[in-house]
Amino acid sequence: MDIKRALIVGTGPGISASFARGLAARGVDLMLSARNTDKIADLAAETKAKTVACDAGDPASVAAMFDAVDTEMGGLDLVLYNPSARARGPVTELDPADVETVLRISAFGGFLVTQQAAKRMLAQGHGAIFYTGASASVKGYPNSSSFAMGKFALRGLAQSMARELSPKNIHVAHFVIDGGVRSESRKEPEGKPDSFLDPDAIAQTYLAVLDQPRNAWTWEVELRPFVENF
Amino acid sequence: MDIKRALIVGTGPGISASFARGLAARGVDLMLSARNTDKIADLAAETKAKTVACDAGDPASVAAMFDAVDTEMGGLDLVLYNPSARARGPVTELDPADVETVLRISAFGGFLVTQQAAKRMLAQGHGAIFYTGASASVKGYPNSSSFAMGKFALRGLAQSMARELSPKNIHVAHFVIDGGVRSESRKEPEGKPDSFLDPDAIAQTYLAVLDQPRNAWTWEVELRPFVENF
Amino acid sequence: MDIKRALIVGTGPGISASFARGLAARGVDLMLSARNTDKIADLAAETKAKTVACDAGDPASVAAMFDAVDTEMGGLDLVLYNPSARARGPVTELDPADVETVLRISAFGGFLVTQQAAKRMLAQGHGAIFYTGASASVKGYPNSSSFAMGKFALRGLAQSMARELSPKNIHVAHFVIDGGVRSESRKEPEGKPDSFLDPDAIAQTYLAVLDQPRNAWTWEVELRPFVENF
Amino acid sequence: MDIKRALIVGTGPGISASFARGLAARGVDLMLSARNTDKIADLAAETKAKTVACDAGDPASVAAMFDAVDTEMGGLDLVLYNPSARARGPVTELDPADVETVLRISAFGGFLVTQQAAKRMLAQGHGAIFYTGASASVKGYPNSSSFAMGKFALRGLAQSMARELSPKNIHVAHFVIDGGVRSESRKEPEGKPDSFLDPDAIAQTYLAVLDQPRNAWTWEVELRPFVENF
Repeated sequence: MDIKRALIVGTGPGISASFARGLAARGVDLMLSARNTDKIADLAAETKAKTVACDAGDPASVAAMFDAVDTEMGGLDLVLYNPSARARGPVTELDPADVETVLRISAFGGFLVTQQAAKRMLAQGHGAIFYTGASASVKGYPNSSSFAMGKFALRGLAQSMARELSPKNIHVAHFVIDGGVRSESRKEPEGKPDSFLDPDAIAQTYLAVLDQPRNAWTWEVELRPFVENF
Repeated sequence: MDIKRALIVGTGPGISASFARGLAARGVDLMLSARNTDKIADLAAETKAKTVACDAGDPASVAAMFDAVDTEMGGLDLVLYNPSARARGPVTELDPADVETVLRISAFGGFLVTQQAAKRMLAQGHGAIFYTGASASVKGYPNSSSFAMGKFALRGLAQSMARELSPKNIHVAHFVIDGGVRSESRKEPEGKPDSFLDPDAIAQTYLAVLDQPRNAWTWEVELRPFVENF
Repeated sequence: MDIKRALIVGTGPGISASFARGLAARGVDLMLSARNTDKIADLAAETKAKTVACDAGDPASVAAMFDAVDTEMGGLDLVLYNPSARARGPVTELDPADVETVLRISAFGGFLVTQQAAKRMLAQGHGAIFYTGASASVKGYPNSSSFAMGKFALRGLAQSMARELSPKNIHVAHFVIDGGVRSESRKEPEGKPDSFLDPDAIAQTYLAVLDQPRNAWTWEVELRPFVENF
Repeated sequence: MDIKRALIVGTGPGISASFARGLAARGVDLMLSARNTDKIADLAAETKAKTVACDAGDPASVAAMFDAVDTEMGGLDLVLYNPSARARGPVTELDPADVETVLRISAFGGFLVTQQAAKRMLAQGHGAIFYTGASASVKGYPNSSSFAMGKFALRGLAQSMARELSPKNIHVAHFVIDGGVRSESRKEPEGKPDSFLDPDAIAQTYLAVLDQPRNAWTWEVELRPFVENF
């Protein structure tokens, strides 16, 4: 599929940044969204990307983001929904307002973005919608109920979209990031290289799925480090 | 497990009514909740149940319902979370406000009720929390994205709770109702008996799971009519 | 479903014995098979069951067992396939002959028994075919490849049979015994009651599934002790 | 991972041929096995591959094939297990001997090849073991019980191997080919391009998985045409 313009929703320093760099290296025109665009200014400069502030769980904010997509890129061929929120702890100790936020950011925002993207992609007859999942997308862990709710819901959306939109030439794919991702705050222990997921390595698989011809599409891929006990 | 007091959230004329009758036949003290308690007055009379109005997706309303549980039954040993909402149609045609409602009723309310129930059950050292799922709990269908989101999320909650609460002597079970349930508006075609799920038959399995000793607990059961193509 | 005659294949001292006792208590006419019928003589006496020697992985032996079923019980309404074999160890250290045996006993024998049972049940228009699975039915563990192969295969058979035979009024059910079962050689640690699966408790659920009306059938149930980390 | 020598077991004109071409284009030294090597002579010439006759379900034949691998390539870095057999029809009409063959070719041969490959790969400290699955790997269809048994079993092996061998630097991956593959005898209907899976497109994903760094490995990928109703 010919991908010229991409929107990354919920851009941070990890998977989404690596994916942005990979797309930029292919000459894809990019728009990066974040709640606070200051934090992604360097990445935007590096990838020659536009930026837009967006609260992914807010319908008006998402609509405004897509207006920017239309105005500044003339539409889009690819969107990645990357945001998530979580509230940890025993179910009895969670604040309901926090759980509501988790559902809003992890799942409802996924719907909002999908809806806007699908309108445009159906009209043009092609597109790709990617979702970043987690171990919690397929396994409900103790003391992590809100995250399981949000990530299970996003996977339900992705699976429903795969069945609804794939036959209309929109590639829907959900990535189960099944392990810890290496970051500034999560460094690998001495002598144990490759024991965390690497954002660049993850992005490589996002790009490989993007390259799949439509006569052999994947809707879900899980990724984990070789040492992961799964 | 000794079940003396039960709360059924989201009582309607189908599965929940059959379950209520089954519990009443065992002498269980019942409280039935519904958005509009007028609709369950007959069932309440039949099962000698108390009733309480509740909007299951609203924290204050759920808290008030549990106050009634405490005051009128002195606590609870079992709760069934039964409500769900859906909004059908292609993703591009759904009203975001409806999707938000689906998530609130199908999933967030499940959290609210679980939290209140868990507090009481952990304190007393035993209990059972049941959830009514659907085909959409495990399969995302086209044109049914919001329902998939809500039901996947509820299943994520249930699985997380099974892992978190079972070791604390609370039996958590999720029922995948995988087919159409017979009702006033969904009657079986001539000459095709048993082609829909029967509410009484479903309730029989809810009761069988409730009867499981804790050294052989099920956390998930699917149910379908014998002719179902699954 | 009216169950008058049952065959239990691969009878041992655990689940199958408890299930036999449960059926006998309901007045079901029983035939118990084992490789060595001496070991099940006491159980047969207790449950007033006939016995038959059978190597479940051998076509001729299975055919002979069903001849005995026909002659001595005039057919059957229920069969439980319970045998399994395993060969533990790293894949590099397994003896291929042992792996062949694991597949023959755990899976091929399941096919042989299903085929013979289905012929009789289809002719009479009803029946139930149950399979005993394990954690390894749904999760392939390290150093347990042969067992995973055998148990996955048996589950594939059961799922295929559920789809093929259920619409013909034959109830097919597969039980995932997800944890250690208490036995003479596996006793619970001091102060940790109910930390293993109990054969009687498991059999209780087998019987509950057998009691399901055909308008609410389960094809798979998992069972684990309340403390199981799953 | 540096892949210099590869063995493809069960080479035919479809997926395996496309994968062989893709590997050859990268300069990988190839050995192709088939029951009858005459049928793969052209492909061998095209890909500069060695060939070896092998009955994948026979321990001696598999051992001889690996002797050839050692002698002619000095070992291997990658193996694809591709063979499968099936016997269609209602369970009551299958010939038990055919079912035994299905299990032997689809599953037992996978064990034999894995065992031989693992010995060599563990000794050298790296390698990749790939398995070709089918829709039947994850769904048991009616009238296809033997195929479900064989393919479920192979998946159980693959999952067990992923857990056992991945931490030892051997990449294990299982591909669920979820749809019909285009071939000489299965041509796409007029006006419906891309309605079947394409062998080259499938092979592209096999290669992409082979290229994954070990800090982001996939153990299972499903592939289907964009129009597939799944």
